[in-house]
Amino acid sequence: MTADPHPWSKELGTLYDHAWHRLIRGVHDRRAPARHPTLATVSSQGLPQARTVVLRRADRASGRLEIHTNLFSAKVAELKATPVAALHVWDSGSRLQIRVQADVVIAHGDDVAETWSRVPEGSRSAYSRSSVPGSLIPEALAYESTPDAAAFAVVHLHIRLMDLLHLGSQHRRAQFVREGGWVGNWVAP
Amino acid sequence: MTADPHPWSKELGTLYDHAWHRLIRGVHDRRAPARHPTLATVSSQGLPQARTVVLRRADRASGRLEIHTNLFSAKVAELKATPVAALHVWDSGSRLQIRVQADVVIAHGDDVAETWSRVPEGSRSAYSRSSVPGSLIPEALAYESTPDAAAFAVVHLHIRLMDLLHLGSQHRRAQFVREGGWVGNWVAP
Repeated sequence: MTADPHPWSKELGTLYDHAWHRLIRGVHDRRAPARHPTLATVSSQGLPQARTVVLRRADRASGRLEIHTNLFSAKVAELKATPVAALHVWDSGSRLQIRVQADVVIAHGDDVAETWSRVPEGSRSAYSRSSVPGSLIPEALAYESTPDAAAFAVVHLHIRLMDLLHLGSQHRRAQFVREGGWVGNWVAP
Repeated sequence: MTADPHPWSKELGTLYDHAWHRLIRGVHDRRAPARHPTLATVSSQGLPQARTVVLRRADRASGRLEIHTNLFSAKVAELKATPVAALHVWDSGSRLQIRVQADVVIAHGDDVAETWSRVPEGSRSAYSRSSVPGSLIPEALAYESTPDAAAFAVVHLHIRLMDLLHLGSQHRRAQFVREGGWVGNWVAP
């Protein structure tokens, strides 16, 4: 009999610990699964939208995550109208699905000047006003990408609920919600 | 100078071809990135929801995709109320993000009897009525998973729009919509 590779999946406390460990790893390790979560939002027409984002910060104490985006992107327009998001990670090494539901606050301009100052030069071209993401262009490369601090936005995700699903020899699933501290319950997978 | 590893990304037609090639690969290859897309829906409270699914069919001629799920899962309830979904794949080998927007039709019961007959015995425990996915349970393993054909549902995704983003030395992004045939346009990344 081989040892259980994922003993942390057995208890609510260690499962929750492990999920935060993997989220924080995503911020610091470009190759970690949580580096590139999928962010889902709702469009002004009520349609679900999903795209890859880069996880920039994960703070367990406050239950907050952070991503960066172009202030003129569709996702910001959607989040201004409907300030809730879902964030999804499938961590294949841990056989763990992390699903987050969060309230969203968008910051830009002077409020994010310090964060902007820490964005590497080579990454700044994603934040441009000259070509709005998703706008029609006549040729594939007929767009500009002049860095512009005024196009830089920070999306703060205030976690409301975390749903963790571990796929082992027997599946385990739990949900954690804020009630003063974080309270977890097992649910059917 | 090295050869471009992704020459298909340069033209609308070859980009579209490649995306379908990768989706179809997901159906047939357990290790392909498109095997496990993220499906986003909208809950009855208007919240976005996202989870991993298994891609079961991809038909380019009709522009349709198919996944299987538990008829009593939250995603089916959500899709009955709001029959639209987004499907997301990040294909790291191709450096390609595939985003699909689709209208959804759910089939179950007699309409899916033949599909059910082809579900392997070992996979049937996911389709159970005895423990509704997401319902509170007192212990991690206090759930049943007795296979039940009546809990098996097929989710048909009728693609409305496909948004393809290739991250190369220069990024390229295009959107394809149904207008009789499929019509593509370049958009700013």
